[in-house]
Amino acid sequence: MRFEIVAVGTELLLGQIADTNSQWLGEQLAAIGVASHFHQAVGDNHERMVLAFRTALARSDGIIVCGGLGPTHDDITREALAEVMNVDLVRDDAVVARIREMFTSRGRDMPESNLRQADVPRGASLIPQTMGTAPGLVCPVGQKVAYAVPGVPYEMADMFTRAIAPDLLERMRQRGETSGVIASRVIRTWGMSESGLGEALQSHIDDLDAAARAGAPGTATIALLASGIEGIKVRVTVRAEDELATRSLLDAEEAEVRHILQEVAGDVVFGIDDDAIENAVARVMIDHGLTLGLAESLTGGLAASRLVNVPGASRWFRGSLVSYASEVKFDVLGLPDGPVVTASAARQMAEGAQRLLGSDVGLSITGVAGPDPQDDQPPGTVFVGLARPGRESEAHRFSLPGDRNRVRQYSTISALDLLRRSLS
Amino acid sequence: MRFEIVAVGTELLLGQIADTNSQWLGEQLAAIGVASHFHQAVGDNHERMVLAFRTALARSDGIIVCGGLGPTHDDITREALAEVMNVDLVRDDAVVARIREMFTSRGRDMPESNLRQADVPRGASLIPQTMGTAPGLVCPVGQKVAYAVPGVPYEMADMFTRAIAPDLLERMRQRGETSGVIASRVIRTWGMSESGLGEALQSHIDDLDAAARAGAPGTATIALLASGIEGIKVRVTVRAEDELATRSLLDAEEAEVRHILQEVAGDVVFGIDDDAIENAVARVMIDHGLTLGLAESLTGGLAASRLVNVPGASRWFRGSLVSYASEVKFDVLGLPDGPVVTASAARQMAEGAQRLLGSDVGLSITGVAGPDPQDDQPPGTVFVGLARPGRESEAHRFSLPGDRNRVRQYSTISALDLLRRSLS
Repeated sequence: MRFEIVAVGTELLLGQIADTNSQWLGEQLAAIGVASHFHQAVGDNHERMVLAFRTALARSDGIIVCGGLGPTHDDITREALAEVMNVDLVRDDAVVARIREMFTSRGRDMPESNLRQADVPRGASLIPQTMGTAPGLVCPVGQKVAYAVPGVPYEMADMFTRAIAPDLLERMRQRGETSGVIASRVIRTWGMSESGLGEALQSHIDDLDAAARAGAPGTATIALLASGIEGIKVRVTVRAEDELATRSLLDAEEAEVRHILQEVAGDVVFGIDDDAIENAVARVMIDHGLTLGLAESLTGGLAASRLVNVPGASRWFRGSLVSYASEVKFDVLGLPDGPVVTASAARQMAEGAQRLLGSDVGLSITGVAGPDPQDDQPPGTVFVGLARPGRESEAHRFSLPGDRNRVRQYSTISALDLLRRSLS
Repeated sequence: MRFEIVAVGTELLLGQIADTNSQWLGEQLAAIGVASHFHQAVGDNHERMVLAFRTALARSDGIIVCGGLGPTHDDITREALAEVMNVDLVRDDAVVARIREMFTSRGRDMPESNLRQADVPRGASLIPQTMGTAPGLVCPVGQKVAYAVPGVPYEMADMFTRAIAPDLLERMRQRGETSGVIASRVIRTWGMSESGLGEALQSHIDDLDAAARAGAPGTATIALLASGIEGIKVRVTVRAEDELATRSLLDAEEAEVRHILQEVAGDVVFGIDDDAIENAVARVMIDHGLTLGLAESLTGGLAASRLVNVPGASRWFRGSLVSYASEVKFDVLGLPDGPVVTASAARQMAEGAQRLLGSDVGLSITGVAGPDPQDDQPPGTVFVGLARPGRESEAHRFSLPGDRNRVRQYSTISALDLLRRSLS
């Protein structure tokens, strides 16, 4: 079964807001095995909406219209759907009563325009609201169907999950379609460039492509995605008949990708799906029963602000000294006067953090965010210092690409990944 | 003139990435007065791409295709455009030479598949690459035109700005169109809720709506957007015949909005457009010739990491002590043992930051991110401390909504806004 998402709103065309609804709906449709070959966005204009809906209905089994159900004069999805269905609008008394009651219970006057939300194309059924005022619509169009949901993301998500997804699954069952399921898994890495990862995986990707072209069922596809502080992601996607089957395909494919990367580059995989670098750091700190203190210069608190994302971080994370001015490095961390973008400064910062914050481990980041050089070092030069109990402190040099913001992000993940590996 | 954006890539339909390119291009087209009535997204499939391109060309004066120009077998925009143009592909020797040279200069072998990027539909002209390997295309289709650009955002933006925008303006000139221009301005605020702002501006928005319905030219529209750490934005949009005219309309509308908000709620506007809260802080610190030190607890370095975004921050920003563990507050900042989410703790943290970091001003943030209460305070309770030279230190209490992440963001902007206002 094929469905097309049509997002309604002039603000989408003008680029004033991102169309996150279509992204979310696309993901949900894929997850229940409904194909989606096209998306459209259209402005708040009656003729264009009718054209967009008709175009979408002609090339799919149905559409999901998102937006244009509100109370203002711009909200004309109801009227456009009625024209596509070739019917008139009928005011629904139960919806009128519900809207009136919502205003009364809040002690507010109801602008008359709100009742437009009770207008329903004749023959359509309602998806009741649980959060706002505008109900969703299920509109039969010949043998096809047009669903309409509000553009407010949580109302849209609620109606899709509660009403549309079950209805789609029932339609697939009636058509005798085995509802294939698409599922993805993200393998998160740090320590190889995107092109390096691509080269390492190329021959495996070629094999998968050849198998898919030969029609082998359940073949995975692989995509790479560079994501700043989130690392470089290897996304594996598979299609199978149910969730259990996709999981076992993903398990096998994850094992294969891990094996290839381990052979080529060692311990570059730090997490799966939403498992960010700070979670990997939390695991090693807790496993070793150690506490951590940071000294950050060019990252300006970015590394610390990532670590506190982990629930319960206060058990192992003491804090960070953000020493943005050089004097703070000298006065608070006890560095000798001199250049601060050096291996020796990074080591002393790590030891200073350990001492100042009373932590077992000290980790430091110093470097040049750019655009200008500092201490004769070009932008992107970063030193990470690491002080561990009972060992000589050490420093590692990185040359990182990009503008100030990217250098900061890459510095943060490089430092946290170094800490993870040093304790793994 | 009307153009349609067609984004190419199965990953867009599956919701694996957000279609930020279409958003950016929509904004750019609006800025030069090109109307865009529809957007489409389509997967990497020849027949569907041809259908999407033909659909888009039928309802507009031209299209901008984004994506599918890379070297892999999935990248088939060239082939689909050639079919729409009803021509064959010709390999361009100059592009072949350029791609070979890029690989040679990096000392890498060139996979033969890269040469697909030198294939050009007969009759199309090239938009040379300045960053990657795939050139863009300008494809005549009858009296209309299809531009094609790579999906890599910075390559896409470069080609649009350098080649497509000038070409569009020239086409408009030839058609004798006065290129109306749409322009927006964002007025950034903190200190009022989104609904509070809405109520304050409602009667003005009603007046604008009435004027627009009556057909008054140059009428502004107003939209509100809550944006976490970026504050709550009031976006004003106007349309006029040229940039100069939009600017004077925006100036007048900005003055009106500022006036209304000042009357209702005082000094809530901290910046315009890209002028973030950290820039407002930088201005007051530099104006007063003061240096700043922070002590952050629940925000975990987030406030500091925002301040270092401002170029030249080291002139006035000394650093931050991220005291995530309570012991760090006692040992390093000198707080007495006891509860740390109190007005008194916030004051002492601000004084401690001043002392430790040797700054003129000390600013502190302590509170409960949640989900559990701390020191008998519910989640969202935040105290901001402020220590200024020659004055008693003070503390302010906030009750902020949302999950951990939003409480952190709102705490950061609340603290920085408090500092801005206290020195304004």
